[in-house]
Amino acid sequence: MSSNMEIKRRGLMLVLSSPSGAGKTTLSRMLLESDANVVLSISATTRPKRPNEQDGRDYFFVGQDIFESMAKAGEFLEHATVFDHRYGTPQKPVREALEAGRDVLFDIDWQGTQQLKEKAGEDLVSIFVLPPSHDELERRLKTRAQDSPDVVARRMAKAESEISHWAEYDYVIVNRDANAALSAIRSILAAERLRRSRQIGLSEFVRNITS
Amino acid sequence: MSSNMEIKRRGLMLVLSSPSGAGKTTLSRMLLESDANVVLSISATTRPKRPNEQDGRDYFFVGQDIFESMAKAGEFLEHATVFDHRYGTPQKPVREALEAGRDVLFDIDWQGTQQLKEKAGEDLVSIFVLPPSHDELERRLKTRAQDSPDVVARRMAKAESEISHWAEYDYVIVNRDANAALSAIRSILAAERLRRSRQIGLSEFVRNITS
Repeated sequence: MSSNMEIKRRGLMLVLSSPSGAGKTTLSRMLLESDANVVLSISATTRPKRPNEQDGRDYFFVGQDIFESMAKAGEFLEHATVFDHRYGTPQKPVREALEAGRDVLFDIDWQGTQQLKEKAGEDLVSIFVLPPSHDELERRLKTRAQDSPDVVARRMAKAESEISHWAEYDYVIVNRDANAALSAIRSILAAERLRRSRQIGLSEFVRNITS
Repeated sequence: MSSNMEIKRRGLMLVLSSPSGAGKTTLSRMLLESDANVVLSISATTRPKRPNEQDGRDYFFVGQDIFESMAKAGEFLEHATVFDHRYGTPQKPVREALEAGRDVLFDIDWQGTQQLKEKAGEDLVSIFVLPPSHDELERRLKTRAQDSPDVVARRMAKAESEISHWAEYDYVIVNRDANAALSAIRSILAAERLRRSRQIGLSEFVRNITS
């Protein structure tokens, strides 16, 4: 697919953020399935494991004390507290993947993205996914027929607060159709891989063709 | 194709540079044929029209005095003298195309790209096309069987001097295969169109979905 296949490059960190109801989880899954070079960053968390979850696949489930000592040792790229539980992105697996030329996908919110940006610098590429319309967002937030108007209104307020951060992202796509949105994400990834600054093998390549 | 079809955006200026022999002319033609939103910037020149050329399609053929007065009036985005002839990119048609949301393709060298960058700022996206190898470059520069080693050596030196400017570009692609290189250029274009900063209709779109 790529025309620069043999040139050594550094992997990139791809952040996909969106309010819930914009289809981000589906798009992440589709991207991982369609591109073997992309790996998902797995967070550590202190929240209890749910029955359908698997340690090391969905999260690294750790105790409060281990989480704290990792945080103190600076082992997280970003971390946050949500409803009394701690969540964090361990640094080491990400660094190793990037150095091996793999791209790492992050499914995090705007706060995590801001923290990540400080540590990642040029390695970071951020995409915000918007729902196509107000009605469609509401429809997707009404997950069950029996949801009360109150519950839906609260979810909507939370979604709107997340959406208000769209302007902090490098790219913005509207998810009208999952396949078109995936193709947009794949174009962004293909382009960012071709950035001169990311192709660390280019100097050597040019030396070879001009001598 | 795009998932952001209805959001108003500003066009971008796409520069494709390469040494002769790297396939840039073929790639430009393929891009223009495959994407109706891309228009080619047509240069003004004082050099005489060749029999196969058409005024307004290949160049705007103008006299020395008209060129000079355009240059003095600041009507060029960039201009240069090559072998006693003057070449320049008229500003007005480019500005009009960009405002209409069209993307403008420039087939110019590194010197023109530098001048353009000063005037275009964020509107500019630059791609450098490299040949796949030294041997392949030499093969493509040997256009006729009877070319003397001297002529080929001179063309090679010129190509190498152009290649030495690869690091001034945003993206670098290696043209191993024209279709793969075209697909890389199209990905870059698709991604750059999705940049938040270029989608000037996004604020309005977000206001609509969150109210």
